[in-house]
Amino acid sequence: MAGNTFGTRFKLTTFGESHGTAIGGIIDGCPAGLEIDTAFIQVEMERRRPGHDKISSARKEMDQVEFLSGFFEGKTTGTPIGFMIRNQDQKSTDYNHIKDTYRPSHADYTYDQKYGIRDYRGGGRASARETACRVAAGAIAKLLLGKANMEIYSFVSQIGAIQLKQIPDILDPKDVESSPVRCPDKKTSRDMVKLIEKTRSEGDTLGGIITCVIRHAPAGLGEPVFDKLEAELAKAMLSINAVKGFEIGSGFQSAAMKGSEHNDIFTNTEGQTSTLTNFSGGVQGGISNGMDIIFRVAFKPVATLMSDQVSVDRSGKQITLQGKGRHDVCVVPRAVPIVEAMAALVIADLYLRNMGAKISQ
Amino acid sequence: MAGNTFGTRFKLTTFGESHGTAIGGIIDGCPAGLEIDTAFIQVEMERRRPGHDKISSARKEMDQVEFLSGFFEGKTTGTPIGFMIRNQDQKSTDYNHIKDTYRPSHADYTYDQKYGIRDYRGGGRASARETACRVAAGAIAKLLLGKANMEIYSFVSQIGAIQLKQIPDILDPKDVESSPVRCPDKKTSRDMVKLIEKTRSEGDTLGGIITCVIRHAPAGLGEPVFDKLEAELAKAMLSINAVKGFEIGSGFQSAAMKGSEHNDIFTNTEGQTSTLTNFSGGVQGGISNGMDIIFRVAFKPVATLMSDQVSVDRSGKQITLQGKGRHDVCVVPRAVPIVEAMAALVIADLYLRNMGAKISQ
Amino acid sequence: MAGNTFGTRFKLTTFGESHGTAIGGIIDGCPAGLEIDTAFIQVEMERRRPGHDKISSARKEMDQVEFLSGFFEGKTTGTPIGFMIRNQDQKSTDYNHIKDTYRPSHADYTYDQKYGIRDYRGGGRASARETACRVAAGAIAKLLLGKANMEIYSFVSQIGAIQLKQIPDILDPKDVESSPVRCPDKKTSRDMVKLIEKTRSEGDTLGGIITCVIRHAPAGLGEPVFDKLEAELAKAMLSINAVKGFEIGSGFQSAAMKGSEHNDIFTNTEGQTSTLTNFSGGVQGGISNGMDIIFRVAFKPVATLMSDQVSVDRSGKQITLQGKGRHDVCVVPRAVPIVEAMAALVIADLYLRNMGAKISQ
Amino acid sequence: MAGNTFGTRFKLTTFGESHGTAIGGIIDGCPAGLEIDTAFIQVEMERRRPGHDKISSARKEMDQVEFLSGFFEGKTTGTPIGFMIRNQDQKSTDYNHIKDTYRPSHADYTYDQKYGIRDYRGGGRASARETACRVAAGAIAKLLLGKANMEIYSFVSQIGAIQLKQIPDILDPKDVESSPVRCPDKKTSRDMVKLIEKTRSEGDTLGGIITCVIRHAPAGLGEPVFDKLEAELAKAMLSINAVKGFEIGSGFQSAAMKGSEHNDIFTNTEGQTSTLTNFSGGVQGGISNGMDIIFRVAFKPVATLMSDQVSVDRSGKQITLQGKGRHDVCVVPRAVPIVEAMAALVIADLYLRNMGAKISQ
Repeated sequence: MAGNTFGTRFKLTTFGESHGTAIGGIIDGCPAGLEIDTAFIQVEMERRRPGHDKISSARKEMDQVEFLSGFFEGKTTGTPIGFMIRNQDQKSTDYNHIKDTYRPSHADYTYDQKYGIRDYRGGGRASARETACRVAAGAIAKLLLGKANMEIYSFVSQIGAIQLKQIPDILDPKDVESSPVRCPDKKTSRDMVKLIEKTRSEGDTLGGIITCVIRHAPAGLGEPVFDKLEAELAKAMLSINAVKGFEIGSGFQSAAMKGSEHNDIFTNTEGQTSTLTNFSGGVQGGISNGMDIIFRVAFKPVATLMSDQVSVDRSGKQITLQGKGRHDVCVVPRAVPIVEAMAALVIADLYLRNMGAKISQ
Repeated sequence: MAGNTFGTRFKLTTFGESHGTAIGGIIDGCPAGLEIDTAFIQVEMERRRPGHDKISSARKEMDQVEFLSGFFEGKTTGTPIGFMIRNQDQKSTDYNHIKDTYRPSHADYTYDQKYGIRDYRGGGRASARETACRVAAGAIAKLLLGKANMEIYSFVSQIGAIQLKQIPDILDPKDVESSPVRCPDKKTSRDMVKLIEKTRSEGDTLGGIITCVIRHAPAGLGEPVFDKLEAELAKAMLSINAVKGFEIGSGFQSAAMKGSEHNDIFTNTEGQTSTLTNFSGGVQGGISNGMDIIFRVAFKPVATLMSDQVSVDRSGKQITLQGKGRHDVCVVPRAVPIVEAMAALVIADLYLRNMGAKISQ
Repeated sequence: MAGNTFGTRFKLTTFGESHGTAIGGIIDGCPAGLEIDTAFIQVEMERRRPGHDKISSARKEMDQVEFLSGFFEGKTTGTPIGFMIRNQDQKSTDYNHIKDTYRPSHADYTYDQKYGIRDYRGGGRASARETACRVAAGAIAKLLLGKANMEIYSFVSQIGAIQLKQIPDILDPKDVESSPVRCPDKKTSRDMVKLIEKTRSEGDTLGGIITCVIRHAPAGLGEPVFDKLEAELAKAMLSINAVKGFEIGSGFQSAAMKGSEHNDIFTNTEGQTSTLTNFSGGVQGGISNGMDIIFRVAFKPVATLMSDQVSVDRSGKQITLQGKGRHDVCVVPRAVPIVEAMAALVIADLYLRNMGAKISQ
Repeated sequence: MAGNTFGTRFKLTTFGESHGTAIGGIIDGCPAGLEIDTAFIQVEMERRRPGHDKISSARKEMDQVEFLSGFFEGKTTGTPIGFMIRNQDQKSTDYNHIKDTYRPSHADYTYDQKYGIRDYRGGGRASARETACRVAAGAIAKLLLGKANMEIYSFVSQIGAIQLKQIPDILDPKDVESSPVRCPDKKTSRDMVKLIEKTRSEGDTLGGIITCVIRHAPAGLGEPVFDKLEAELAKAMLSINAVKGFEIGSGFQSAAMKGSEHNDIFTNTEGQTSTLTNFSGGVQGGISNGMDIIFRVAFKPVATLMSDQVSVDRSGKQITLQGKGRHDVCVVPRAVPIVEAMAALVIADLYLRNMGAKISQ
């Protein structure tokens, strides 16, 4: 397996380079009979698309998903769902200057080392454009999870040094989408926008953190011991471009906590077992416990700068890369639907894998 | 796939419960002709074993690995390597009191929800005893990687609030193994031991952080886009009991850095391209770049306390769990060989997967 | 895994229904640096296409493969190769009469039972149109195998009761392609054509057998014990529509042979070990031995007849299906490139899987 | 994947050489709550064991399956089932004479070519001893299928040129087990025994055919397009030592049939759709249709003869192999439980894979 397939039962395989003909994918394993709301899928695509607000770069792509198979009369048929998104923006001459150049903290050097050849136009396969396919497939996974009453809610909780101090009590997607940086707190959101504007003027870039909450997942999802729920989520998140860290529940904070503080005490109300706290982040022993599944994902700052940088070319010679064009200062807000999509793919897969865990009585 | 297999080319499948007859596993895909140093494997097993020093619990297990197949005249034959470790300590009556009880932040409740039945003795399959099989298999992966000059070096960098401030310049495994808490800095090590002793006297427990460095990995390991090197490492680490977080290179710190600070500038010395800094942690675009691969793993505090806790039983009734027996205050030092083993399994797998990445010229 | 992926290292995933928008696929794991001869691929597509000669049905499809990713400047880049073939012939009203009908020995009933919904137009996913994607991917596998000097040669050895008595001494693809039924013996070919014409006039259909020879495969391909070379070939062949049997080497004849007749005696000439006979069909213990790999594939007669048949509909009511339209009397000649494509996929996969079988010295 | 795992949801991984310490395996994915009848499993083991009747070789092995994990209080827990069978008969000096020898139609040469090293004792991993693990796992699969009312019934239908002319109307396992050659027809059974005795006296060996019938499989099993039911069965059967052919339903006979003869006409009785004939062998479009699943498996004659044979050694020098010891003349009767076991593994896997094929209403 060469790495372009995700999942084992709800399985996505993708293809496509930034400046090739098209990107796309195949979803295999989606149950038959699921109603497909194509308008919802397109809304999800729009959420990821660059250029839809003033904080992101100006490149315009339509990102229209064309479905090629797997539906009939509005419902899935159980056969693989093929889809593609044409690339609009293929002016490949724009990239001749980086043909033999290794941009710092990009994948240019490593692709060359691994494959001996590289489609250098716009980053090729290493471009974040590839994540559009994840969002398309994740939207279908969300439709499947929605039938089982599950919801995925995520938002930006840090940009640069600006942090959202607390997860809001009421999780309303509108509060996220109404913020230009997808931060549900209005004050924090404004501070983040200011920081982005300031950093843009400096020709520099920013990273950040996304928090994700999966609500109403039933107890029982996750396959011990290697395919624990948190292990699958961690892989999913670290497979996203620019991600450098993942933590679930108490995460890195847990290292400094005592067991007596950290243990989530069980309680039972009206026959329903739950926990008083949720440092576990909804997972115990690799299996969901019915509480909210909460995790955080760290993104490094964008590697493409608007200022000059020193680097080397293929021959090892030192060169100077000029900062030019228009690029995103911070991609974290746009990564929110990508995090959600990967979370949806993980949960849909584990939901199907859990069928047959026990003999039906 | 029900989750008990790790890897696709160098593939480990494990079995076994804490208090069953035995635990064990099968390694499939190890190349033929590898000399097997069984003494080395047993040393690795000893590193994980409880009770080998004064800071850990008193339970004595021999953890003798019995190899059942796959070797002939001291070398691997390319056929699957079966192995097992007999369980010595099977006094199952010790566990009758937790038969119908859900211990806080353990896997009791979730296993019951998922499977409807549970081997409650010593945590059953959810026990960390399972990790002994990872260490055995990881030792063989290390032997394979050693043939290609790769090394894996890890140590405890935090226990409770005590942090190791800096990765030592010279990485020498002896400095780690000579510390009772596997921290290479003598002063920090002493502080950690003191904290453990103090916490033991309080009947409480501690978590911590392990740092791992993989040295001399060639450029080219990792399979974009979903099976990125860091994605496979993240999954591997989050599959270890009690792990709540993973970060590579700059990790969560990167969220607050600017691109101009974070970019690793390329340089070329005597024909060898490298980077001046290593915020990337040895990975760019999901593929190793030849620099040290550096990551950190966060462990929550041990859930079993030496003090009483409130919980519920299967029927939902509130009960009190008594803190008794002898248990580890902090398992992080013992988790060092487990982290190394999982890292070795990931790298061995990606090393074999990388064969055939390009047409040989 | 829902069944639309073939292979583990050279991996094909396909999608598409007969009368949907398009069919297509993704090849993942093709090594970088392979020159892609698109003209060759199109020739292979033409070989499978209906309507290219007087013995097959009149439906015209262009079957133009559109490649969407994975190549750059004429060579593979190691990234997934996405491709699609637009469906030209989508007059779905043609199929309203079979909407609620179960055609005998078709997949109508079983798809309804499994999925509860069915794209009935032209057989949907169960249509042999799906095999066009196999031929496209198989062509790329052939290019890869060609770099290692391997060849795949196959032909029709039986149609109805007309049998080709002997495999020709000299295997020349031209002898196959110059025959309208892809049988390299001129006399047998003429008899087969006559039988097809006669059967057409009767409104009936025919089955047949294809023989395949893989030449110059190196010793060592095949993964014992479950993924033996012959096991992978058997699966590949039985996954083709209408195939009812597979045999390798002596096949079913071996049941009536004695060991002293059947054993292939080893000999050594100029340092090269080979066997005097080849009842093994090029495979021993599941691994290729360097001799020709020879197997045979049995196809049942086409299920769609030009005469009326009794059947039932979804409600269980008896109905009469009218034989109408133009359909193939015998699809076996057109299945020759499909058999070759699947063989190429199997060998390419095992060729890549064999890398790393032993420690390089 | 190096080939020692079978199945994707009900998954068996095996290890072990003929004359190593032990053989064994891990079953992953068996649902929790299945009652394990260990006596039944041992009966299945006995059916495969050599030396249990006068027609097979004298080697005595106990083949006692030792279960190591996965059960608790008589039921499966959903965790992996580890098991092993100690090798009793490890007199490895018996095999020094074949250390550097390539026996005709054995796997000696191919293992050496692939791995560069070989455990030559008793055939090592290539020995049919490995199939004992399949029978153990298959017995558990049978218990699972039994809960869903499915049965697997198989018998010897040909040895040498002696054929059973017709499948008996009433399928009773007792008629099979009471025959020393596992042929349910008394007259044919006697003829087969005579042929075996005669062939033994000649120092020669025999092959044969096994027919298998799977009864009460529900409609809907099988995953199009590559993992069709018949494709998975074909792979399973061709993975058994000495198998050279597989056919389902009409099989190779279908090649000479006309469509009008071969089509299975649907009928509906009391709301249940079935077919009047069963040339399809219970499978249409790769999915079971609720009729009996019928297939046949061809075995080549045993390669080890009691008479001398010419061969070569590792250096290419011609040598003479002496026929000595006691070996089976015909292993086909003993292969009956192996065929059943592999069929059970296939059906159990597809049964679990079929869960989630459609949205539950």
